[in-house]
Amino acid sequence: MRPSSSPSEPLGLFDGVLAAGPIRAATGDAAWLRAMLDVEAALARAGGTPPEVAEEIRAAANRLDIAALGSAAAESGNPVVPLVRALRAAVSPAASQHVHRGATSQDILDSAAMLIAREALGLILADMAVASAAAAHLAEAHRDTPVAARTLLQQALPTTFGLVAAGWLTALDSAADRLAAVRATGLAVQLGGAAGTLAAFDSPSIVDRFAAELGLPAPALPWHTDRTRIADLAGALGTACGVIGKVAGDVVLYAQTEVGELAEGQPGGSSSMPHKRNPVAAISARAGAARAPGLVATLLGSMGHEHQRAAGAWHAEWAPFTALLRATGSAAQWLARCLPYLRADTARMRANLDLTGGALLAERVSAALAPKVGASEAHDLVREAVASGRPLAEALAGHLDPDQLASLLDPASYVGAAPALTDRALKRHGEQA
Amino acid sequence: MRPSSSPSEPLGLFDGVLAAGPIRAATGDAAWLRAMLDVEAALARAGGTPPEVAEEIRAAANRLDIAALGSAAAESGNPVVPLVRALRAAVSPAASQHVHRGATSQDILDSAAMLIAREALGLILADMAVASAAAAHLAEAHRDTPVAARTLLQQALPTTFGLVAAGWLTALDSAADRLAAVRATGLAVQLGGAAGTLAAFDSPSIVDRFAAELGLPAPALPWHTDRTRIADLAGALGTACGVIGKVAGDVVLYAQTEVGELAEGQPGGSSSMPHKRNPVAAISARAGAARAPGLVATLLGSMGHEHQRAAGAWHAEWAPFTALLRATGSAAQWLARCLPYLRADTARMRANLDLTGGALLAERVSAALAPKVGASEAHDLVREAVASGRPLAEALAGHLDPDQLASLLDPASYVGAAPALTDRALKRHGEQA
Amino acid sequence: MRPSSSPSEPLGLFDGVLAAGPIRAATGDAAWLRAMLDVEAALARAGGTPPEVAEEIRAAANRLDIAALGSAAAESGNPVVPLVRALRAAVSPAASQHVHRGATSQDILDSAAMLIAREALGLILADMAVASAAAAHLAEAHRDTPVAARTLLQQALPTTFGLVAAGWLTALDSAADRLAAVRATGLAVQLGGAAGTLAAFDSPSIVDRFAAELGLPAPALPWHTDRTRIADLAGALGTACGVIGKVAGDVVLYAQTEVGELAEGQPGGSSSMPHKRNPVAAISARAGAARAPGLVATLLGSMGHEHQRAAGAWHAEWAPFTALLRATGSAAQWLARCLPYLRADTARMRANLDLTGGALLAERVSAALAPKVGASEAHDLVREAVASGRPLAEALAGHLDPDQLASLLDPASYVGAAPALTDRALKRHGEQA
Amino acid sequence: MRPSSSPSEPLGLFDGVLAAGPIRAATGDAAWLRAMLDVEAALARAGGTPPEVAEEIRAAANRLDIAALGSAAAESGNPVVPLVRALRAAVSPAASQHVHRGATSQDILDSAAMLIAREALGLILADMAVASAAAAHLAEAHRDTPVAARTLLQQALPTTFGLVAAGWLTALDSAADRLAAVRATGLAVQLGGAAGTLAAFDSPSIVDRFAAELGLPAPALPWHTDRTRIADLAGALGTACGVIGKVAGDVVLYAQTEVGELAEGQPGGSSSMPHKRNPVAAISARAGAARAPGLVATLLGSMGHEHQRAAGAWHAEWAPFTALLRATGSAAQWLARCLPYLRADTARMRANLDLTGGALLAERVSAALAPKVGASEAHDLVREAVASGRPLAEALAGHLDPDQLASLLDPASYVGAAPALTDRALKRHGEQA
Repeated sequence: MRPSSSPSEPLGLFDGVLAAGPIRAATGDAAWLRAMLDVEAALARAGGTPPEVAEEIRAAANRLDIAALGSAAAESGNPVVPLVRALRAAVSPAASQHVHRGATSQDILDSAAMLIAREALGLILADMAVASAAAAHLAEAHRDTPVAARTLLQQALPTTFGLVAAGWLTALDSAADRLAAVRATGLAVQLGGAAGTLAAFDSPSIVDRFAAELGLPAPALPWHTDRTRIADLAGALGTACGVIGKVAGDVVLYAQTEVGELAEGQPGGSSSMPHKRNPVAAISARAGAARAPGLVATLLGSMGHEHQRAAGAWHAEWAPFTALLRATGSAAQWLARCLPYLRADTARMRANLDLTGGALLAERVSAALAPKVGASEAHDLVREAVASGRPLAEALAGHLDPDQLASLLDPASYVGAAPALTDRALKRHGEQA
Repeated sequence: MRPSSSPSEPLGLFDGVLAAGPIRAATGDAAWLRAMLDVEAALARAGGTPPEVAEEIRAAANRLDIAALGSAAAESGNPVVPLVRALRAAVSPAASQHVHRGATSQDILDSAAMLIAREALGLILADMAVASAAAAHLAEAHRDTPVAARTLLQQALPTTFGLVAAGWLTALDSAADRLAAVRATGLAVQLGGAAGTLAAFDSPSIVDRFAAELGLPAPALPWHTDRTRIADLAGALGTACGVIGKVAGDVVLYAQTEVGELAEGQPGGSSSMPHKRNPVAAISARAGAARAPGLVATLLGSMGHEHQRAAGAWHAEWAPFTALLRATGSAAQWLARCLPYLRADTARMRANLDLTGGALLAERVSAALAPKVGASEAHDLVREAVASGRPLAEALAGHLDPDQLASLLDPASYVGAAPALTDRALKRHGEQA
Repeated sequence: MRPSSSPSEPLGLFDGVLAAGPIRAATGDAAWLRAMLDVEAALARAGGTPPEVAEEIRAAANRLDIAALGSAAAESGNPVVPLVRALRAAVSPAASQHVHRGATSQDILDSAAMLIAREALGLILADMAVASAAAAHLAEAHRDTPVAARTLLQQALPTTFGLVAAGWLTALDSAADRLAAVRATGLAVQLGGAAGTLAAFDSPSIVDRFAAELGLPAPALPWHTDRTRIADLAGALGTACGVIGKVAGDVVLYAQTEVGELAEGQPGGSSSMPHKRNPVAAISARAGAARAPGLVATLLGSMGHEHQRAAGAWHAEWAPFTALLRATGSAAQWLARCLPYLRADTARMRANLDLTGGALLAERVSAALAPKVGASEAHDLVREAVASGRPLAEALAGHLDPDQLASLLDPASYVGAAPALTDRALKRHGEQA
Repeated sequence: MRPSSSPSEPLGLFDGVLAAGPIRAATGDAAWLRAMLDVEAALARAGGTPPEVAEEIRAAANRLDIAALGSAAAESGNPVVPLVRALRAAVSPAASQHVHRGATSQDILDSAAMLIAREALGLILADMAVASAAAAHLAEAHRDTPVAARTLLQQALPTTFGLVAAGWLTALDSAADRLAAVRATGLAVQLGGAAGTLAAFDSPSIVDRFAAELGLPAPALPWHTDRTRIADLAGALGTACGVIGKVAGDVVLYAQTEVGELAEGQPGGSSSMPHKRNPVAAISARAGAARAPGLVATLLGSMGHEHQRAAGAWHAEWAPFTALLRATGSAAQWLARCLPYLRADTARMRANLDLTGGALLAERVSAALAPKVGASEAHDLVREAVASGRPLAEALAGHLDPDQLASLLDPASYVGAAPALTDRALKRHGEQA
């Protein structure tokens, strides 16, 4: 069954930044209501209800009032109890008796959560694919572009911007692979009835039919208080956010006024400061990603569901579940708005490599000097040259042939296996796509 | 200045459970918009704008469209930029030039956050006061009611239910004291302009006037990237949730079918299981409280605001800031709906004390036997009696006078300083109230 | 290559409870030092060093002083710099020149972390297998033992203790599957040199040889700042702890004095309270499991490694990485000490089912009455009977034949598909084992 | 009573980086053992034991074996049970009968935790005072030194480095104030006996005498399951870490090769890359600080102590309690090693201000042009000048007098109230010190 299209709700004040893109509608209250009715309809069909009756249940979504359900949820502790009541009233008497037969509230809400997750993961994966494709493009285009490798935020040695982008690509692909695996096999319908024994159903085979209706796997057992599915999903989303945050963080650092090696295609302006080129997309991606660890912790910390239904831990999942999907989806959306439009300033990359007057290549020059003056003497000569603050080309002019020195000090020729590694990452990406 | 009343928004599907009570409206988008306009109006007044012009700014709230602002926020990375634009368009040209003069977006949003926090803390404290008063009432009413003390969920010794409630009371009061202290002195206006230097203002005294307008303290410095205020608030909310969760958790345990010592006044029913008396209020309180640790961690983890404005960490605060206030407010509301209506079943408390046949008083009986038979022998006798599974009154009938034995096995007379401690807690509560 | 055996270190004050079993030694400082030297030796071999020279490197572990390395680590910010220095001094001049060639500190530490993780996961999986086997045994033995299903800690309907144990089993198996997958394919050697370009090596093929030496996968790229491996491992450990905490929490609840359906085989005694049977193993398992969410959050929150080497985020991983493995290992060890020795009190289970006088079967009785008196009347009759507090067998004696009533009120005959579901879980467990 | 001096333990492999300074010994196992014996001795004295007997108890620390206690702790679930046993065996029979009278394990461990916290907070505050003093010195020395204000890591406007340092100062002082308040009034002895009723003591006044012996406040009630003290301490430590991380993060950013405005006094070198000046102290401070949010979350998440003694949540506190004190202490120590030795490169600060050719002052130049050409025309002229990439002094030469233009483009004269704000922060700091 295809998930119903998610009706839209008005944007919240912070949603443009924090719930960017399609993830907002896919995880909003209307989507939850729709998913719950899809579940009720699927349950009815699985139980042998005529299709037109099931369709009546499904179509009732448009006639139910979210605010009224939310308010009534307070009495019973969850929104399914009033939903079932309203649903029975909203459909014909014939359909009414087929509503929610044998199920418990958690069956409906957990199964709906799986539908929400499947849809949301699809959107997140689509945005991550856009980001990966952009990273692959950057890796290819800048396979041989030298840039300073920075360790502990200090220039260290030359590398290539291609390898930098290939590193982003590989990390994004890893995170996406895990999300895709969770989407493919880590979700499952929930159906157990009040005590998880399926006591109100004729046969446990109802679960298989119900699962088939929703296009989700059937679990070995009802998982009312086995939250491994939620936890695995949370972990995969947390990993994805970590990767997105890493890439976006690098963009912010490259975009610094004093570094200037990358700029966003459509950076945010500032009315009073016309020179500013705020990397708004990267910043917004970081903002989304930063929320994940705490939300993952809340979901993991809520796994202690007591006995056959948790006294609070289940309810504690609802908000972080939605928030984590939204934060990840928004972060992925922002990265997909960022990477394809990045402008790399290769001249600035080259200029920055020269900032230390060749010190980035001290190791290499030292090795070239060693055969002439001895290793220890070579090391001392180079160290002094670096310490002097003068360009190495000048400070060591008396010790090496100018052409050789220039060649040794060319960062583009000291990037090791960076191009080969980039090729390997691109190849692997191509194979997975 | 009194905070404007918060207009209401439609209830979300999970809000009845997870955002119960007035906290929802006080932290909703309409409240945020209202707070931002209160801040803009206060800034205008502090800058010498005629009151009627400031009032025009303030009143524009009704004409601004939250969804449009949320959408436009994506361009600049925060909702203040489009707000200022819309506000300038919504007011008269005369008022327009007074809008947002010298301020930066973060000045408005951070100051609005302080207004939201002040209002929300007021609501939370009110609910916690209701809960405390109920706990005090229980402590007083059950000052001498024996109940089993349970350590590691095993019955250990007798205590009184009064002391149990006094423990709740003291913890609630401690948490409330801290919240009140944060509310009284831990909030402050934010005003620094684009670089935090107040460069666009004539004098730093603008901050004092602005603070006076909003009835908030003036900080020593603009605190754009010093998030101690947010962190202290978060910590205090986290502590409060921890206490609420502890008390609600105890209620859930006392309400178990097999324990039955407490019941909620209006427990949630189950249509199919008429015997169930779900402690819905306690469960919902736990659900809110369980969200706090992760949200606090996110706020603490977002304190690394770079230089003069964070590249993502500021934006990452918005959602958890609101969510933490809501979760705490909802948890406090539910506890305020729970404790005043608790029904204590003192007969059941007494019956449960007898479940182990007097083993809870083994220590005491052993001490009474010792002078007669020697300490070691006494210990062995009692141990064997307990191990036999027979009531001690029966198993030890040959060793002690029946009256003395009955007296020794009376749990009500072995509660130590419980009543005195209860009195002390009530006295302290009375002094603080 | 087999990991070297981990030398033991003295037990810490809290280690008996919080780092129980073999995980302590496997994650201690001596194990870390050993792993780092295994890595250095493997690197030497991969680089063509004669085996006896590599062995000399490896064997130096016994001559290095952990405290001295720890102290010297402060200067350079990590323990590898002093390790390499000490190692070069500790081996022969011939071996010395082969030490650490072309590598950077992070190559050594990250690869060592992978060895530690592989070893620790092996131990955790072994303990989880013990726990799973015990759960399977309980599921089998109690396939048809009725026990109250408890939702929101209220008795709801009958289920079987077999299905309860099957639920534990399935959850434990799911978590173990994920850990095993991470162990099999989620780890990888780290080798990139100072800038991640392998500039100091002749060919990137060094990585494959290095990986082969350590028996770990070779990654597509050096992953100095791509922390998906750490994050996936963290997520899987967090899920495992969540499951362990759930199972242990259930044990604690079943072991309550007032419930008494389970007892630990060797519960902790209390010298002053001879009747207490503290479920020490379950409690200690919970204590370990409770630490995971925060540690996972720290590892996820530290994924933002800047550029080619993080300025703090890498260092921030070390402690939570070890702590998370230890907490999980200890929790798993305690569960393995708990489940196989659990004593189920089936008489108590049966007695507890009768606590509500048959109310657990109200739904069933109501359905049986309906054909006789009409559905609505049946419902009202049963509701009143339950509300009266009298046993249903007595309260409804006038409405149903005594034999039929007794049969309807037999919980063992109203457990739905519980036995069939238990069989299914056992079958799946058997196939996986 | 003065806390006993903490005996030292060997340094762990990562301790030089992650447990730097005196915090390690103050929170190590030997310190814990010492604290527990100090508590037992104080309890004995408070109970009327002759001083020499109490001293015998206290002095037994040297004869107890931590590893043996740790191992035996596994049986009972905490290290106090074997400690008491070993202690009774280690002292004279006369002293033996005074050991642990009337107390429960948690009384000893919780009270010892308070002693550990008091000592650790003292050390942390001392290091934070060093850092604050250094920040004050920088603020004073650079009161008028212009530096670029950076928002979203983009140069925005000029500010002064004095104000930057004043911002660090104010944040550090706020966090220290809170820690000092917790140390002064937020700690308290724990004494309640097995059920929290003081049943084994003659009078509740024992608590006051016990508190006086340890120099800690007496609580209103035993707080075995009221963890507000732990939570408040955790929150304050989390805030402190957040501030330390912010300051250290700024140092790392200022120290970037491309920015170069700050350098650590003794930066970590790299043997192979002599030009690198790794800000090791700032990086290590960040590493410590990054661990706090997760540890705070664990402590907050463990507040749900059931009834009169928690079944796991108490045990779950021990490791994060120590780890959080250590992480904070180490971070504070590193900041105290960093800030006093920072070298500010004011020439580089000035040069960086010129990087954008005066664009940082566009707002000011625009305002000066407005009276001449009209506001709108002025804005456009300046915008075009900035967009041209030419220095404003050149691009606008035809529109403003060269002297006036030079004056307008002098960043030092456009720092607003920065010096005045700096003075205010210094004054407040002076008053608090």
